[in-house]
Amino acid sequence: MMSGNGNLLDRALRDAPGVAEFSDDSLIAAMLRVEVALARAQAELAIIPASAADDIDHCASSLAVDADELVREGAQAGTVVVPLVRALTRAVHARNAEAARHVHFGATSQDLLDTALAICTQRAVVRLEAELASVQGNAVALARRFQSTRALARTLLRPAGVTSLGFRFAQWAVVLARGRTRIWHEAKRGLAVSLGGAFGTLAAFGESGAALRSDLAARLGLCDPGMSWHAWRQDWVALATEVALVVGSLGKIGVDVSLLSQSEVGELSEPGGDGRGVSSAMPHKRNPVLSMRLRAGARAVPGLVSTLLACMPQEQERGLGDWQLEAATWPRVFEWALASTAAASTLLGGLEVHEDRCRDNIDATRGTVFAEPLAHVLAGVLGRPDAQALVSRLCDDVVTSGVPLQEAVRTAIRTDARLQRLDVATVDACFDVEAATAGAGRQVEAMLRQIEHGE
Amino acid sequence: MMSGNGNLLDRALRDAPGVAEFSDDSLIAAMLRVEVALARAQAELAIIPASAADDIDHCASSLAVDADELVREGAQAGTVVVPLVRALTRAVHARNAEAARHVHFGATSQDLLDTALAICTQRAVVRLEAELASVQGNAVALARRFQSTRALARTLLRPAGVTSLGFRFAQWAVVLARGRTRIWHEAKRGLAVSLGGAFGTLAAFGESGAALRSDLAARLGLCDPGMSWHAWRQDWVALATEVALVVGSLGKIGVDVSLLSQSEVGELSEPGGDGRGVSSAMPHKRNPVLSMRLRAGARAVPGLVSTLLACMPQEQERGLGDWQLEAATWPRVFEWALASTAAASTLLGGLEVHEDRCRDNIDATRGTVFAEPLAHVLAGVLGRPDAQALVSRLCDDVVTSGVPLQEAVRTAIRTDARLQRLDVATVDACFDVEAATAGAGRQVEAMLRQIEHGE
Amino acid sequence: MMSGNGNLLDRALRDAPGVAEFSDDSLIAAMLRVEVALARAQAELAIIPASAADDIDHCASSLAVDADELVREGAQAGTVVVPLVRALTRAVHARNAEAARHVHFGATSQDLLDTALAICTQRAVVRLEAELASVQGNAVALARRFQSTRALARTLLRPAGVTSLGFRFAQWAVVLARGRTRIWHEAKRGLAVSLGGAFGTLAAFGESGAALRSDLAARLGLCDPGMSWHAWRQDWVALATEVALVVGSLGKIGVDVSLLSQSEVGELSEPGGDGRGVSSAMPHKRNPVLSMRLRAGARAVPGLVSTLLACMPQEQERGLGDWQLEAATWPRVFEWALASTAAASTLLGGLEVHEDRCRDNIDATRGTVFAEPLAHVLAGVLGRPDAQALVSRLCDDVVTSGVPLQEAVRTAIRTDARLQRLDVATVDACFDVEAATAGAGRQVEAMLRQIEHGE
Amino acid sequence: MMSGNGNLLDRALRDAPGVAEFSDDSLIAAMLRVEVALARAQAELAIIPASAADDIDHCASSLAVDADELVREGAQAGTVVVPLVRALTRAVHARNAEAARHVHFGATSQDLLDTALAICTQRAVVRLEAELASVQGNAVALARRFQSTRALARTLLRPAGVTSLGFRFAQWAVVLARGRTRIWHEAKRGLAVSLGGAFGTLAAFGESGAALRSDLAARLGLCDPGMSWHAWRQDWVALATEVALVVGSLGKIGVDVSLLSQSEVGELSEPGGDGRGVSSAMPHKRNPVLSMRLRAGARAVPGLVSTLLACMPQEQERGLGDWQLEAATWPRVFEWALASTAAASTLLGGLEVHEDRCRDNIDATRGTVFAEPLAHVLAGVLGRPDAQALVSRLCDDVVTSGVPLQEAVRTAIRTDARLQRLDVATVDACFDVEAATAGAGRQVEAMLRQIEHGE
Repeated sequence: MMSGNGNLLDRALRDAPGVAEFSDDSLIAAMLRVEVALARAQAELAIIPASAADDIDHCASSLAVDADELVREGAQAGTVVVPLVRALTRAVHARNAEAARHVHFGATSQDLLDTALAICTQRAVVRLEAELASVQGNAVALARRFQSTRALARTLLRPAGVTSLGFRFAQWAVVLARGRTRIWHEAKRGLAVSLGGAFGTLAAFGESGAALRSDLAARLGLCDPGMSWHAWRQDWVALATEVALVVGSLGKIGVDVSLLSQSEVGELSEPGGDGRGVSSAMPHKRNPVLSMRLRAGARAVPGLVSTLLACMPQEQERGLGDWQLEAATWPRVFEWALASTAAASTLLGGLEVHEDRCRDNIDATRGTVFAEPLAHVLAGVLGRPDAQALVSRLCDDVVTSGVPLQEAVRTAIRTDARLQRLDVATVDACFDVEAATAGAGRQVEAMLRQIEHGE
Repeated sequence: MMSGNGNLLDRALRDAPGVAEFSDDSLIAAMLRVEVALARAQAELAIIPASAADDIDHCASSLAVDADELVREGAQAGTVVVPLVRALTRAVHARNAEAARHVHFGATSQDLLDTALAICTQRAVVRLEAELASVQGNAVALARRFQSTRALARTLLRPAGVTSLGFRFAQWAVVLARGRTRIWHEAKRGLAVSLGGAFGTLAAFGESGAALRSDLAARLGLCDPGMSWHAWRQDWVALATEVALVVGSLGKIGVDVSLLSQSEVGELSEPGGDGRGVSSAMPHKRNPVLSMRLRAGARAVPGLVSTLLACMPQEQERGLGDWQLEAATWPRVFEWALASTAAASTLLGGLEVHEDRCRDNIDATRGTVFAEPLAHVLAGVLGRPDAQALVSRLCDDVVTSGVPLQEAVRTAIRTDARLQRLDVATVDACFDVEAATAGAGRQVEAMLRQIEHGE
Repeated sequence: MMSGNGNLLDRALRDAPGVAEFSDDSLIAAMLRVEVALARAQAELAIIPASAADDIDHCASSLAVDADELVREGAQAGTVVVPLVRALTRAVHARNAEAARHVHFGATSQDLLDTALAICTQRAVVRLEAELASVQGNAVALARRFQSTRALARTLLRPAGVTSLGFRFAQWAVVLARGRTRIWHEAKRGLAVSLGGAFGTLAAFGESGAALRSDLAARLGLCDPGMSWHAWRQDWVALATEVALVVGSLGKIGVDVSLLSQSEVGELSEPGGDGRGVSSAMPHKRNPVLSMRLRAGARAVPGLVSTLLACMPQEQERGLGDWQLEAATWPRVFEWALASTAAASTLLGGLEVHEDRCRDNIDATRGTVFAEPLAHVLAGVLGRPDAQALVSRLCDDVVTSGVPLQEAVRTAIRTDARLQRLDVATVDACFDVEAATAGAGRQVEAMLRQIEHGE
Repeated sequence: MMSGNGNLLDRALRDAPGVAEFSDDSLIAAMLRVEVALARAQAELAIIPASAADDIDHCASSLAVDADELVREGAQAGTVVVPLVRALTRAVHARNAEAARHVHFGATSQDLLDTALAICTQRAVVRLEAELASVQGNAVALARRFQSTRALARTLLRPAGVTSLGFRFAQWAVVLARGRTRIWHEAKRGLAVSLGGAFGTLAAFGESGAALRSDLAARLGLCDPGMSWHAWRQDWVALATEVALVVGSLGKIGVDVSLLSQSEVGELSEPGGDGRGVSSAMPHKRNPVLSMRLRAGARAVPGLVSTLLACMPQEQERGLGDWQLEAATWPRVFEWALASTAAASTLLGGLEVHEDRCRDNIDATRGTVFAEPLAHVLAGVLGRPDAQALVSRLCDDVVTSGVPLQEAVRTAIRTDARLQRLDVATVDACFDVEAATAGAGRQVEAMLRQIEHGE
């Protein structure tokens, strides 16, 4: 059973019974893996006997650890590493008393825990990357498919003009592509081995300290940070902030889908099926639970990041409280990121587009969304202030009279002497939807090219 | 097994395998309890047949619910209530098809979940209250025992004067007493039943809506909020902010104990024993893990509260993402509060005071901590600016020469013509430790009286 | 000129050139007022000569303080109090050298600053209270005026049923009334004088310490906290959390208005006029800038509260960094609260309701919002699972066919043998809008009564 | 006068009368600069007449803008850009009516404001970079000067072993060097021009949109983002998170200096002079106000970053509330970063090191800080569990008896049969300070090399 990653509501909100990468079992296995790699690297550098490394490896592989006991004893000691190392040492001692003194040699609890978290995080990042790639692929496909589907652009929750759905989807794709690059780039330096010894000086390893850290890093597929980072968290926390940024971007997608799928807007629908979004009371409802998850993720992560940042000024060679809280908080950021990415993947994989509603919504504005180019044209004869005022008034009339703006402006040209110089064709051109969305089309092309070229 | 309340590191940091009040089992049981109470109240008001309430009660009592399945199906539906109600309805249907339509009648998912969370929270508050009372009792005992033990007061991490340990402990006691009052007061109105029906209007219950809500509240020992609060979270979130304030106060105790128990200060020690605070690498260390927990709690909770507050502007009649995230975040605040309170209880129950070190630290300042009253006395003959400047210079000399301030000022009186008017006895009185701490003593009395009188 | 309360964008977003209550001038005046009141209280208790109090009063009244100089020197000293007291002492010294030693006697910087902030905050709370009362009044008026105006209720951004606008507005009124009570109640204990002396023990005042604090509190119209609270911030920060809760509630009103005033929904409009919400590019737009402000406030305050809470664990007798940051952050919470309240006042004072659009939106659901009562009725003959499934299917058909649900279910009754027992009148009653909103009406009455009775 | 960047306490805490880069004047000037550059770029691409660009340039250069009026009108309009563009248009219109229609052509408020903020931010980053370089230089100098000065390492606020001051200072240098690289790298892509037009599609510019954006970027020395980023804030907010990470690292330096300069520790002192850190009440005090500022900065920024992240999910083509709040919050992050960097520069430039106290503090541990290597040696004969237990007991005895650990273990060797195999020289080697800090020395070399090579 995967458990331990959150309460019932937490797990349901993230659609995850638990996150395998940070489950108790994964974390314990990662810590034991570090002990083994450390022993092997030390044996390689003749810091400990090779046979001791064999014994440690053997015992670590078969060590049975009870997570709840680890919690209980770890709470007393201040870290779960103490009882874990004690258990491993005991097991090695039972096999070969001499080898037992080489367990965890020269390392400190934080070395073990930070490195184990880096291992778990690396796995989480690999999964995140794969899912983000799939989301991006879906966004690209949507951008291509609906490249010329026109729809309202909205700013400050008001219709602003006509854009294309393809433009919107291409933006999703570009931002996700850049987000992937960010995470990947940061992971390369942030997922580092920790090896400093009791207080960072690598004191126990004589001249071999740096070589040992480098060897350990290579064995674990992590980077060598070139320093002890027990109390220096900049490059580590940076990975979480990069991930948080992507969760924020996914949250924006969630906000947009939820707004565009309101009944009164109706341009998009979440994929249905399998009881998704059914209500306990209202049989007619299909709640947008994927958007919900994306929105919740983007709301949850900022508080977590503020905790990680607040934990940065850790005291002296190892902090009291801050480091421990950082480590306990860390997995949540990735849990949310994985939840958001999975939701986005399902959402974009089955997103329904209602082109008729897109058209209807444009029509319902009765041309007022073309007020901006119209005002520019009128400014040629009226000057800008008067032109803006006139168009603004005409738009107000559209709302009350229901007469479309294009018609209203034609009437104005006939009746307003100042406008007689105006060419009706030029005015009509302002209402040309195809021209209006040409810019969007060009940008879609440019954005898709960017993605292809990995910019 | 209690689980599901956090990852391995989380649970170890809080010294809790899980928090029973918000475990999967507790939450599920609370939800079922609400369904039963709802049915009973509806039967009472003749909204549903009494026999249906019997059937619902019977089935709810024996319903086997798999938490992981609930998570999985709840994730699809957007809330765990949907599969839970479905399971209960199915069970009731199997027993009595007619009764099945009365399950969850007129209520909505959020009614069930909010009320169940209020039930779980109430239990957490009761435990919190009991533990806080014990911490307060320990603080009072410490205040009495060390009422006249003198120690340095420190401001901005610098020695500032002489106070008494009793004064410090009495402040702990008063603040905790006030914190308890805060939580208790808020719990009385914040722990409310939720009953609004699908969108808050109590539509299904005809004229009996308000009576039903009131009856349900009475059955569950919760308060009747007098309104539907699906999307209005003010009185609910307020309980969490009160709890957060107390965690902050406990954090201050943790900061102070950790600073005062630094080796170089040595005035306090955490209770030892049972492997508390042992290090994986350093056999000489006793890490202050109780302070650590208090510090971590006070650092963790602000981010959680910011999430709860950020979730307040929930959309229309029920929010999309915000409510769900609030509910998932809610238990963490109480988990931390319980962890901090338990740590404080152990800490204050066994706090060691090193009176010799308190004395030594006062002595080590060589009287400079009496500079303030001294400057006031000197100001009588020199005027305040010159007096402050002189005392400031004398204090600097103390640091370099090692000559105590009292001696230095006596020398100054002999050699500085401006000071000849000064009475040496008046100057000496500035260095009277007993007089200096009389104010602290009076305040201890007043604070302990406050607590006794429940002010 | 009022300035210093934020950058250009900050001030514009809050529609405030600055907040008078926390302007440089207000804060400086409040600090001087505290010095005068302290001297007067000390003279009353014969701690200092009455003539010294006269001199201090006289000089404080006419002291010219340059805020920028205060900032510069205060930065060096660590607090603006140092140069302010220095300037006041210098002025008093110039008038009467002997009196100068009685300036700020026995007090510490934090006493002065905390008390001055309490004075400024009290004024802010009084203004907040007045504005909230007006907002509440507007909400009550709206609730009465639109008590029986029917509109869609929406949950998770989906139509859920039919409610009344009056129900919604009455909720606004009740929550604001409760919020006012919260703030008022907390202000009574939170707006306390600070007087502890250098490190909290009231050492300089002999037996008169408590009496002096009490007298000072009375003179300043603040409460006597009964303790030194330099490093104990629970009761102080509590006032900010109460205010934050109300900003959250106002944010919800902003979210709702902004959603309900989307063009495609059109049920509400913000009051226009005076160039409110015009666009730099788009003459047709009227941006909902009042909702914008409410939303921004509710998003800004959680981060500020997290900072205040994070600053609670202040070291020993006075913290290093935390207290100072708390004080610098404090005004922002109230600035936002005042900005939100002012925006709400304008918004509710001129809110436009479009009853036709409310009706249209109900009609556009083609009866699917009555699915819940319908399913309950059908459950009587089909059992609940089948009834829910049938209604769910019928609702899906409504969307595709456009045939209203009421008609569809009548057809079903004619064609589906299982439904023949059903009484058509009972089914039709499910679609009775008046009956559907009766519950809302009853609740409006109850809520307005609550407000009248000050519950 | 520089003003508007915060209240009195805020400015004093940051030791800044205001931050020039984000002052009202700077922001207004930057916005006008963008309008001019836009016009010039459009003239270059024949989108508007060259003469219109001349007129716009001329009028923008001499436009008198009243910031308070801008705030007032901007509040009404929802953005200060509306009144600014109106004023500029009016001025251009007065000079040449035809040119007026080309002001701000095709751009939207957010284009102007985001680009202006990028200009202001770029200047702030340049200053930040220069100051960080100087802080780093100071850290390198300290590392060299105190390379072999031994001092206690402390973990969880407890002595852990012996390190060198040079090791600590070299860590400061490396982390700051990496932080600079982070900020610089991110600034290159994050400081981008914004040009999307009313809703991101560059609709008004026909085929020239992308070229115009690129030209505008070149003119302003900003990067071309390759997309419209009105509602996509990932690459922008990323710059703030990088800066926040560095503020966190500086906060750690502040925490360490404040702890190491406690009277009881006394290893470091902040530079004094010029009234730095004087107290209003206590003439003997020198408060560590530079550490205070670093600590406050690191506590302030996490809440701000959480706000920026929370503002990321902006609605559709331009958000309602979130974007505006992000822009208003943005300057604060940089204000704090500049304040922290300036404080660090003064702090490291004059940091006093007390080598005698470093030695005394090592001696005061009576050798217990060498318990770790000792336990390892003893494990060779006792096995690890017994060795750890023995050393732990010996350390406890040291505390009670005062007998140094080295002596105690020698006694044990003589009296404990199990230890007879031990070579006293090997045991004595455990207490060799020079050997103990050799690892630190090697790491200092490596870290300083890293910095030199710009790794």
